[in-house]
Amino acid sequence: MSELSVNHLLGIKYITEEDIQLIFKTADQFKEVINRPIKKVPSLRDITIANLFFENSTRTRLSFELAEKRLSADVVNFSAASSSVNKGETLVDTVNNILSMKVDMLVMRHPQPGAGVFLSRKINAAVINAGDGTHEHPTQGLLDTYSAREKHGDLAGKKVVIVGDISHSRVALSNIFALQKLGAQVKVCGPLSLIPKHIESLGVKVEPNLRKALEWCDIANMLRVQNERMDMPYFPNIREYVQQYGLDKSLLDSLSKEITIMHPGPINRGVEMSSDVADSDHSIILNQVENGVAIRMAVLYLLASKIKSYEN
Amino acid sequence: MSELSVNHLLGIKYITEEDIQLIFKTADQFKEVINRPIKKVPSLRDITIANLFFENSTRTRLSFELAEKRLSADVVNFSAASSSVNKGETLVDTVNNILSMKVDMLVMRHPQPGAGVFLSRKINAAVINAGDGTHEHPTQGLLDTYSAREKHGDLAGKKVVIVGDISHSRVALSNIFALQKLGAQVKVCGPLSLIPKHIESLGVKVEPNLRKALEWCDIANMLRVQNERMDMPYFPNIREYVQQYGLDKSLLDSLSKEITIMHPGPINRGVEMSSDVADSDHSIILNQVENGVAIRMAVLYLLASKIKSYEN
Amino acid sequence: MSELSVNHLLGIKYITEEDIQLIFKTADQFKEVINRPIKKVPSLRDITIANLFFENSTRTRLSFELAEKRLSADVVNFSAASSSVNKGETLVDTVNNILSMKVDMLVMRHPQPGAGVFLSRKINAAVINAGDGTHEHPTQGLLDTYSAREKHGDLAGKKVVIVGDISHSRVALSNIFALQKLGAQVKVCGPLSLIPKHIESLGVKVEPNLRKALEWCDIANMLRVQNERMDMPYFPNIREYVQQYGLDKSLLDSLSKEITIMHPGPINRGVEMSSDVADSDHSIILNQVENGVAIRMAVLYLLASKIKSYEN
Repeated sequence: MSELSVNHLLGIKYITEEDIQLIFKTADQFKEVINRPIKKVPSLRDITIANLFFENSTRTRLSFELAEKRLSADVVNFSAASSSVNKGETLVDTVNNILSMKVDMLVMRHPQPGAGVFLSRKINAAVINAGDGTHEHPTQGLLDTYSAREKHGDLAGKKVVIVGDISHSRVALSNIFALQKLGAQVKVCGPLSLIPKHIESLGVKVEPNLRKALEWCDIANMLRVQNERMDMPYFPNIREYVQQYGLDKSLLDSLSKEITIMHPGPINRGVEMSSDVADSDHSIILNQVENGVAIRMAVLYLLASKIKSYEN
Repeated sequence: MSELSVNHLLGIKYITEEDIQLIFKTADQFKEVINRPIKKVPSLRDITIANLFFENSTRTRLSFELAEKRLSADVVNFSAASSSVNKGETLVDTVNNILSMKVDMLVMRHPQPGAGVFLSRKINAAVINAGDGTHEHPTQGLLDTYSAREKHGDLAGKKVVIVGDISHSRVALSNIFALQKLGAQVKVCGPLSLIPKHIESLGVKVEPNLRKALEWCDIANMLRVQNERMDMPYFPNIREYVQQYGLDKSLLDSLSKEITIMHPGPINRGVEMSSDVADSDHSIILNQVENGVAIRMAVLYLLASKIKSYEN
Repeated sequence: MSELSVNHLLGIKYITEEDIQLIFKTADQFKEVINRPIKKVPSLRDITIANLFFENSTRTRLSFELAEKRLSADVVNFSAASSSVNKGETLVDTVNNILSMKVDMLVMRHPQPGAGVFLSRKINAAVINAGDGTHEHPTQGLLDTYSAREKHGDLAGKKVVIVGDISHSRVALSNIFALQKLGAQVKVCGPLSLIPKHIESLGVKVEPNLRKALEWCDIANMLRVQNERMDMPYFPNIREYVQQYGLDKSLLDSLSKEITIMHPGPINRGVEMSSDVADSDHSIILNQVENGVAIRMAVLYLLASKIKSYEN
């Protein structure tokens, strides 16, 4: 049964706990590979992958590209700025054209929520959602829970608080789904103007007070404050935000227990957390980045196996 | 005699019918390759190719890059935006520098008509013109005729109408040359302000009425309307253009025969043609894209053989 | 003793004459490789290299990328425009993230003098400085002296004049260090407003008169005039600059001896020199470009050997 239940990775919402466990088990093996002197395996030698980024990205694109190259796939990159999307072509036309060039897999970041789901229905290739607007960012959800599990073991019963702008975060939603499927308890913490009203219907409690949230949790996942949001009317004054939701060393040290700090990066040092928190032993932020490559190798590998199995 | 008569592909104008047939025969083989699960051949393992795009392009660049990677060439990309062309360097200096790095082949798109010819005289490497201003786009001419032949068999005696802005289209000129060398009859159709005065001297008839043109032809190649042209004084009002030269399903269905629809992409849906035409069984638009990779592999492969033969 | 004395290439200042000779000897071998029909060697098959360019560059980036690909390394590219540096992330965070993805070597261009040194202390990977502001550009210094030696033999006792904007040139400083370590005598020539006051403390004489400088030297290394400098108050009027420091054929022919002309490129034809000088037999400008790939292969190869030796 070492096969995913899906042909695409569109969101954590659409996969099962078994899928997550299979991805984790496969990532364990790839993590060994990328820590060897020889980091490359020939697994995807026959596969061409297009990375379609309709929004700027450094780390997600690089992480996928490294994962693809270490699997020996052929890789072509495509970014919106230089694309014929600017010439008024529809998304389906752009993608159909790329597929007619016999591309097997698409990794896509797109500002529109649901862009990946829409595409996967129209085209005949494996689609991996690398972020669709404020909706989901499933490989981030996987690498975050994988990193948390690496530190804390089985996540069943563990307590995780997600801190920040929940409303506009695709990281938050993918994390909530992944954590719940793995049996963790989830709270969110942040200004009420940045927490969606329906969040409790997902089984997620709201804790507006950061100290209380931290006293409750085993793990705090601090979301990035998007610079482009800071000037929006719904966003609090940034100094107030830092006072109420920024994590510094004295707050961390004053807690009655040890907690683990996560952040999807890039960090705004002095905003979401101070530098001494980011660089402390509590932080597993760079482990998250390292695990990102292993998780993406696992996802690419497992989806490629499915392509091969229906080709045969 | 399986050798091209030229060392560069600068325009269809400069190659023979035998060259075209040799490229087609070679493309047949590569088309098989790219439809296999393992799409890669080691043919150009020793060759370094630079893609020099002095104008934005998505599909042509991606198509060349895929062709190059499937031939196992080493590929470096260069785009005008980030280039020292902006630092005031001349084209010859830029290219000489790239050649001094021991690049074997250059694929170049450039806004200046004749840029490829100019370069091929100055430098010691195979040059492939990927579009020089409004002049030629030879691999497009080859893939279009290859796709037409795939549907209709031998093109000798077949009737093809090219519809749209003939004056500013490098696709039109390369298609006219390729079709005529293969024995097809060619007409052009479009607003008279967008048809060059000298066109009949090329043996091409003008048919200003779209219905009459379509009743006459076996194949209609609908050119893309360039957005940047639409505001020019010589360009008709866009609504009038669509009324007179846009192809919709009711017009297509009212014809007394079945015709094939081509388009070099990207399509402006609702301008050159309606979506139901673009997505109909008449359309071979996505076949054109697929064949683009095979044709480019063939051109690269045949020009590389010539390099190797004069190296030995 | 075929090992560099350093784990990074941060500047010529930090390496020994023996290091330079070892790099030259290694480059000799790679120069043979890149002049073979098969230009690739598997030496860095296990190594992942990130090219981080925080400033625009064509030739340096392409030269490194070709060197890396000919050594069979895996390459990822990163440029400032699309990076999270724009999202307010610190340089160390950006680089740590890239390193967490298990990148072995970093090639970095950065506007800040000392950026490479700073990084090499913070991170656990080999750093190659590809230009840090107005400070050093060590691979340029190496390829320039390598090219000069190729033409003139052992540089001990040879006379080299560097002409132009010395103050703002990283090429000048790396050349001065490399030439002196190899025993050459160095003078600089240019408008006094463009020559640093402390230059004589480096053992470099100032000769403000171009004719006198040329009569003295064996080799003239003409620096590029940066367009962005030309409007600065310290920069002379460009016509005066050309009259006093531009090299044309009549001046070159009027000298009592044959001298060699170098330029790091891209040339402003008609500014630093006329076209007939740039294209004359005196010029070894394109040899410099060709040697750039061999030198960079040598540097990458030697630094990678050190990584492997402390990994084992």
